[in-house]
Amino acid sequence: MVKQQDSKSYRGFRTAGIRLTEELIPSLMDHKTETLGDMLPGMHQFDKVHLVMLTETGLIPKSDGIAMLRSLREMEARGVEKSRLESGGGMHSGEQYLIRRLGESVGGRIHLGRSSGDVGEIGRRVAMRTHILEFLPILNEFRKVLLNLADRHLETVMPGYTHGQHAQPTTFGHWLSMWACVFARDFARFSEFYKRLNQSPAGAAILTGTEFPIDRHRQSELFGFEEPIPNTIDAILSHDEILECSAALAILGSNIGRLGEDLMTWSMSEFAMIDVPDRFCGTSSIMMQKKNPYAPQAMKGFAAETAGLMTMALVVEKGATGLPIMERSHSEKGLWSAFASARARLRDAIELFPALIVKKDRMLELAGSYWGQAADVAGALVREKGLPWRTAHQTVGILVRLSIERGVKPLDVTSSLVDEASIDYMGKPVGLSEKALAAALDPTQVVGRRTIFGAPAPAAARRELEAFNKQYDKDVARTTAMQSQVAEAAKKLEGAIDALVAA
Amino acid sequence: MVKQQDSKSYRGFRTAGIRLTEELIPSLMDHKTETLGDMLPGMHQFDKVHLVMLTETGLIPKSDGIAMLRSLREMEARGVEKSRLESGGGMHSGEQYLIRRLGESVGGRIHLGRSSGDVGEIGRRVAMRTHILEFLPILNEFRKVLLNLADRHLETVMPGYTHGQHAQPTTFGHWLSMWACVFARDFARFSEFYKRLNQSPAGAAILTGTEFPIDRHRQSELFGFEEPIPNTIDAILSHDEILECSAALAILGSNIGRLGEDLMTWSMSEFAMIDVPDRFCGTSSIMMQKKNPYAPQAMKGFAAETAGLMTMALVVEKGATGLPIMERSHSEKGLWSAFASARARLRDAIELFPALIVKKDRMLELAGSYWGQAADVAGALVREKGLPWRTAHQTVGILVRLSIERGVKPLDVTSSLVDEASIDYMGKPVGLSEKALAAALDPTQVVGRRTIFGAPAPAAARRELEAFNKQYDKDVARTTAMQSQVAEAAKKLEGAIDALVAA
Amino acid sequence: MVKQQDSKSYRGFRTAGIRLTEELIPSLMDHKTETLGDMLPGMHQFDKVHLVMLTETGLIPKSDGIAMLRSLREMEARGVEKSRLESGGGMHSGEQYLIRRLGESVGGRIHLGRSSGDVGEIGRRVAMRTHILEFLPILNEFRKVLLNLADRHLETVMPGYTHGQHAQPTTFGHWLSMWACVFARDFARFSEFYKRLNQSPAGAAILTGTEFPIDRHRQSELFGFEEPIPNTIDAILSHDEILECSAALAILGSNIGRLGEDLMTWSMSEFAMIDVPDRFCGTSSIMMQKKNPYAPQAMKGFAAETAGLMTMALVVEKGATGLPIMERSHSEKGLWSAFASARARLRDAIELFPALIVKKDRMLELAGSYWGQAADVAGALVREKGLPWRTAHQTVGILVRLSIERGVKPLDVTSSLVDEASIDYMGKPVGLSEKALAAALDPTQVVGRRTIFGAPAPAAARRELEAFNKQYDKDVARTTAMQSQVAEAAKKLEGAIDALVAA
Amino acid sequence: MVKQQDSKSYRGFRTAGIRLTEELIPSLMDHKTETLGDMLPGMHQFDKVHLVMLTETGLIPKSDGIAMLRSLREMEARGVEKSRLESGGGMHSGEQYLIRRLGESVGGRIHLGRSSGDVGEIGRRVAMRTHILEFLPILNEFRKVLLNLADRHLETVMPGYTHGQHAQPTTFGHWLSMWACVFARDFARFSEFYKRLNQSPAGAAILTGTEFPIDRHRQSELFGFEEPIPNTIDAILSHDEILECSAALAILGSNIGRLGEDLMTWSMSEFAMIDVPDRFCGTSSIMMQKKNPYAPQAMKGFAAETAGLMTMALVVEKGATGLPIMERSHSEKGLWSAFASARARLRDAIELFPALIVKKDRMLELAGSYWGQAADVAGALVREKGLPWRTAHQTVGILVRLSIERGVKPLDVTSSLVDEASIDYMGKPVGLSEKALAAALDPTQVVGRRTIFGAPAPAAARRELEAFNKQYDKDVARTTAMQSQVAEAAKKLEGAIDALVAA
Repeated sequence: MVKQQDSKSYRGFRTAGIRLTEELIPSLMDHKTETLGDMLPGMHQFDKVHLVMLTETGLIPKSDGIAMLRSLREMEARGVEKSRLESGGGMHSGEQYLIRRLGESVGGRIHLGRSSGDVGEIGRRVAMRTHILEFLPILNEFRKVLLNLADRHLETVMPGYTHGQHAQPTTFGHWLSMWACVFARDFARFSEFYKRLNQSPAGAAILTGTEFPIDRHRQSELFGFEEPIPNTIDAILSHDEILECSAALAILGSNIGRLGEDLMTWSMSEFAMIDVPDRFCGTSSIMMQKKNPYAPQAMKGFAAETAGLMTMALVVEKGATGLPIMERSHSEKGLWSAFASARARLRDAIELFPALIVKKDRMLELAGSYWGQAADVAGALVREKGLPWRTAHQTVGILVRLSIERGVKPLDVTSSLVDEASIDYMGKPVGLSEKALAAALDPTQVVGRRTIFGAPAPAAARRELEAFNKQYDKDVARTTAMQSQVAEAAKKLEGAIDALVAA
Repeated sequence: MVKQQDSKSYRGFRTAGIRLTEELIPSLMDHKTETLGDMLPGMHQFDKVHLVMLTETGLIPKSDGIAMLRSLREMEARGVEKSRLESGGGMHSGEQYLIRRLGESVGGRIHLGRSSGDVGEIGRRVAMRTHILEFLPILNEFRKVLLNLADRHLETVMPGYTHGQHAQPTTFGHWLSMWACVFARDFARFSEFYKRLNQSPAGAAILTGTEFPIDRHRQSELFGFEEPIPNTIDAILSHDEILECSAALAILGSNIGRLGEDLMTWSMSEFAMIDVPDRFCGTSSIMMQKKNPYAPQAMKGFAAETAGLMTMALVVEKGATGLPIMERSHSEKGLWSAFASARARLRDAIELFPALIVKKDRMLELAGSYWGQAADVAGALVREKGLPWRTAHQTVGILVRLSIERGVKPLDVTSSLVDEASIDYMGKPVGLSEKALAAALDPTQVVGRRTIFGAPAPAAARRELEAFNKQYDKDVARTTAMQSQVAEAAKKLEGAIDALVAA
Repeated sequence: MVKQQDSKSYRGFRTAGIRLTEELIPSLMDHKTETLGDMLPGMHQFDKVHLVMLTETGLIPKSDGIAMLRSLREMEARGVEKSRLESGGGMHSGEQYLIRRLGESVGGRIHLGRSSGDVGEIGRRVAMRTHILEFLPILNEFRKVLLNLADRHLETVMPGYTHGQHAQPTTFGHWLSMWACVFARDFARFSEFYKRLNQSPAGAAILTGTEFPIDRHRQSELFGFEEPIPNTIDAILSHDEILECSAALAILGSNIGRLGEDLMTWSMSEFAMIDVPDRFCGTSSIMMQKKNPYAPQAMKGFAAETAGLMTMALVVEKGATGLPIMERSHSEKGLWSAFASARARLRDAIELFPALIVKKDRMLELAGSYWGQAADVAGALVREKGLPWRTAHQTVGILVRLSIERGVKPLDVTSSLVDEASIDYMGKPVGLSEKALAAALDPTQVVGRRTIFGAPAPAAARRELEAFNKQYDKDVARTTAMQSQVAEAAKKLEGAIDALVAA
Repeated sequence: MVKQQDSKSYRGFRTAGIRLTEELIPSLMDHKTETLGDMLPGMHQFDKVHLVMLTETGLIPKSDGIAMLRSLREMEARGVEKSRLESGGGMHSGEQYLIRRLGESVGGRIHLGRSSGDVGEIGRRVAMRTHILEFLPILNEFRKVLLNLADRHLETVMPGYTHGQHAQPTTFGHWLSMWACVFARDFARFSEFYKRLNQSPAGAAILTGTEFPIDRHRQSELFGFEEPIPNTIDAILSHDEILECSAALAILGSNIGRLGEDLMTWSMSEFAMIDVPDRFCGTSSIMMQKKNPYAPQAMKGFAAETAGLMTMALVVEKGATGLPIMERSHSEKGLWSAFASARARLRDAIELFPALIVKKDRMLELAGSYWGQAADVAGALVREKGLPWRTAHQTVGILVRLSIERGVKPLDVTSSLVDEASIDYMGKPVGLSEKALAAALDPTQVVGRRTIFGAPAPAAARRELEAFNKQYDKDVARTTAMQSQVAEAAKKLEGAIDALVAA
């Protein structure tokens, strides 16, 4: 016995003297536990799932299977990460642990019909799954915060902007309600991706599965996957699941970033529509007046982080089937980091939003000060005077210009100025009643008139909110179902181990 | 009448002397028909939908509505794009056409309750929808090409690669079958996105809808949308639909690019596993021997194009709600161009794949020449000799090294060399039978033994192909249903116009 | 004579029946004149340069060389693009033209010792060079606009912001001066890149040059390049010049985009510090009050366009040496489009900046209203009372909070409130003199006190402006020198042709 | 004394009760030492530089300055990072340390005339500078490895490829020489960027400098910067230095990635032109035959990492001047990580290249087997028979096709087959001599004939290598000069402290 390593100090299959003649240089050893990061739990789970399946199908001696499962139970008692690190770390440290404990004659049987390919892919998919199941409830919680807050602000009139300019008055509740819709789409994207993700690569080995009659459906069941991926090359060497996950994160990032930009803008002194509570702000080492909104900036940073991830993942995946492999460790690190940021930023937002100081008076003042009501003056001309829209529009265009040139504020405009504009445009006074003009100019009434489906009038917005709440309820139920499927599989796995170990 | 433009030469609402005092500089006029590109049809359709709804609801005089609808019918007879260009071009050239024809007193009524906001968003959504409906059947057609070709190559043994190195033998049909699965996921992504896309922004105006009681559900119905988007700010100022469409294209691009990389690699002289027919190739102005595979390079180019689009769209969308608007024209151009490329590259592939020259002998030769069978020698040791996997694996590791050091080809290896390796590893000859060794070393048998779910053994692969064909049938039906919904709405719209115009 | 094409209808070397057996499918023909775009001039120039060199070195019969040069002169008289299109278009349409005119026995001699490789690379490098030489003077012109305008606004006090919050008062001139520095760095980047770009790939053929003793130095000289690229593989198959050009554009894009964001922000109604003249603005089809700043949005769009280009170019270039070739057409289109945008946006800015309406009163008002002066109150405490900076800083921190809580505006704060803060912090009144306090609180004096190198006090800023103007002069001279080198080479080339043709 | 913190437990200036009323929530505290990462040394250096300058200029009491400098010397003896962490961590932990040691009355004086703005920017610039100075010598070392190895392989004939197909024979030395040129450009990019980077933001405070007459030139000198940045807004709020550094890394990444792709391709079994030594390879847990090249994959991963960084940095920087600040922490982390990867990958390469197993026979065999010599047969027809290039080219095009159709290998082709081709093309036998044909077909002679500037003939390539070595020497000298400037400034700083402390 020359080459076989002593079981006690077994260092894995890649040792000099077997297939290769030299030890790997340190800078290229990056499959160690410490860098596997969030993929370790899925890999450990695979050790258990695989042993149960191998033992049940009789592909390995029953007693060996049981011995290994018992040994893994001991490992769990000692701490999985710690134990694996002590055994050398890395994706094969479970096997290393078993060989060190039980000798190669027993522990050397675990890897039958399995490869680094499916171990790695299980690690990735279980990690993504875990992150999504952890993240979606937080996303949902934030949606509920938005829905509740929206309901309280359906009459909080504020300006709406386009091109950075005053467009039309809406309400803070209507704006919050938009965000509930945005994040409902993020939920949909992640939950639809989840269906594609939650498929089992186990048993696909490196790309052709195995000659041993392993039971891929049993593996899938014990993991809580929907079903085994039905083409073994696809299971291991296609990686659009990484791209789709990165894309879902980048889109979420763009949304959260935009939310942060809104908060940054509206908390500027010149806007002063909202105030970010002090605990979300920093100050400056020289400019003691500073109250720098930190939370919204962190949201914006998440957008940058995930945009970078998307480009990086696309570059990694460029190449012939099976060519990029080690490069993928960059995508992995990027994904786990992005999910952690997603949770952190959503938790910030869950605390921040109910605490936001909403300056209703300032919002209303701004809503009426910069001609956001102009369209309604044209509307009044249409309704009271029967003007075609375009004629009314152009007339009020002149009116607005005149009011600005003369320094007349919107709320101070009178019918005679409207007449002056209409004379300029049409050659005659249009004679809009002061009553109609006043109604048109009042921002609160502007909002109140917008009662069509989806619009900001409080009653309309409240009606739509009900539907959003119903969708929210459905999505919470869907999330729970996703979690249950995984939890029940975990129970089934432990039950199967119990049954074997008890034997 | 001073400012009102003469109807005959009406140039639109942004003329010097109304709200603004100067004409726009030429370099900033980019909302003309020629740059609206693929969005024009949706915008024209909106003119019709809006007029029908305004007329039906009585928001404009019936006779005016009818006159305008008749005028648009004439425009269609003359050519929509041509007519709109003659009227000044741009998103409001429908209105301009109507005003020039019917005067401001009639044509000036079309825009009531509508804004550039929903006109633009309709343009984008209808264009994306049209592109997807045009693209999905081509994608499906390519899937069918792959499925059919896979069926013909389930016994065409070829090498599978990872890290660019020989991994294990599989079949060309198994590889083709993987691609059918990959593109089935692209179908799923686009069709799920379609549900989020096919929602109506019409009537949301710029962000608050309108005070006029327009019927957003009727608009939605006449467009063939699922339903109106239930928050008017969200309808106009959220743009994750652009990001999701870009992401779906970028993921498709990565997939198509990878396919191109496989073809590039396998048609290299050193591989010579496939030959790309001459009509898909170029040659060189000096190196007359060259047969450069153009079609696969074009596929790879599509990957680059869409990755760039993704970054660009993410950068465009960064900003507070409503802040980025004109920048979006870059995303639009990028989207239409990417869809055109997607169709072109898939059509190339539909023609290319059935014409590919598949060199079966070379594939089989390569599959047996570089130890892709090694795992099966270890498998034989496990089955015949009861070795633990790891022991077998290490023994064969030594065997492979010895064979390479001594220049013995895999198919020439004998049991005595296996013994030499086992003596080296375990201190004793393992005595594998020559019969088992020969069976292990034959690539065709290697593939034939892989009968588990998803694996390449012909019977297994054929069984899985059936399921893929069923999924394909479902997806074709889904595509047809998507197209029908839109086609029927178009009929309904024309019917509604007929009914009004006949009055 | 079976295969040789009739000269009259010569369609190029890639015809069915020579090396390849089929005609290329239409969707893959993308090397036509219409898509070569901005690369055609360099390719045509290469035809002339190459012929001169071949004739001078005697590598082709002198009479043939002269005949071809004469024919190209005729082509120029008729129009190069038109003539080449009529000859079939594409990078080899010069040769096609000559063969059609002079027969293959003469025209067939032009391509000796040349390849599509160096033709393409010449096309790219000359196009980039031309774009840079066209773009830099516009960039310089904008720098001069900024420098001149800065000089006029060195006393226009305005607020400076960080984290979107009021930081400290500065001047509009100081801000303009920053932009002059930013764009000076863009100049430096492009001009340093130019040195790497302006190297000759001519004669490198496809990667090994040629066996014929062509004169690469003569080619380089006639093009106005610095020198031939000294490794022929590098000349053709390395493409960091595309990446560096894309990166320089992306950085310029980020800078121009940021400038656009500043203008967008400051022209918001809530800021109202600047007004963008009407000719750079649009209005709305319903919101007639709207004055949407178009020019700054176009600037922001340029940032998105170039960020997308960068990602796209990086994805294109991923691959083994010589593997990506046709994909590069995407990078090319992206580059030419980005340079066109760069010029357009800079020209907008050149017209916009002198026309900007700068609201000095509003700027000054804002500069004093939100405690941007706070640091100077602390500074006064340090100078007058000898407090350590941190003690002064914290004291004024309390002062600011108290003033906000009590609604006291910065300019209304008195020494007694300072005392209240100091009692709170240190347990005793600090007794700052009213005079020192008033001096600290006046934004104009705040600026005036900042006289150190680089700071905004008018005298300091004017002093630094002088240095910037000197750097500008140097850069203008450098630009002229770059242009002259190319212009003189063009003259030399025409002179050499004259000399030959006259023979 | 109510609010003033006890010096012993001073926690920094942002404590509840001063400007703000609440403590910052933990998830937003990210300016701690542990996350400052590579920026800490520059920040600590700034503490020293600033104190020296403040003391020398008399802006703080000399005794206080000396006390603080002495305290920092003690801190250095104890360990800077450790001490700062114990003092609370973060960019202001130097001040915190001093206040805890010396009380606010002394330690509270350090921050006079400084801000988080310049502290942060110093941290970034010094860190980038340090990384570049550490990285360039490694880059240079690799260049030398390439130059030396190139010299040894100038006669190692191997195929050159374009479009993944055999183009023309070259030498391994010529290819290595290309890489020396590529990395010389990377050197140039980084060293030119260095000039823009190595400018002092110190004293610019947050954007306007300070009212106190600090000496920015003295600060700059003590840091070893070229000069102070001459506009204080630019110094702090422009960040194209981050973008340029990211771009230089992304271009380097693309280059290193391409090098990795070449190695991956050439070590494929089908190529077998090179062999990556075992210590740079992994093997597989099931496919024991595998020798997976890890080092080249790690190189490719670096390309993906830096492409992601570029997009991320561009997204971070989008926004008005001063708006993005905290987001920049993502760019920082990305930069430090990318530099670490750059060093690791270059060190791998420095060890890998001299150890590469170069299979000369295989290279030569491939160079002659796939018609890479074809252009030289045409060349022979031009030289011996006076054919126009295009006529020769087309004739040989037919020859190549015939040889492939008939299975005649290039080296077995005879003049009669050439005649057959010429009859087909021109209607008559061309009568190329067997001698000329044989000379044309021999790959070694093909290379040997390419003697023009930059071409692969050994003598030519050796001549050009000399120039590359000279450039290398210059760049090494330039690197040393850059390092010396910084080292001497460090000495000057310590000398100035010595002088003060000795007082």
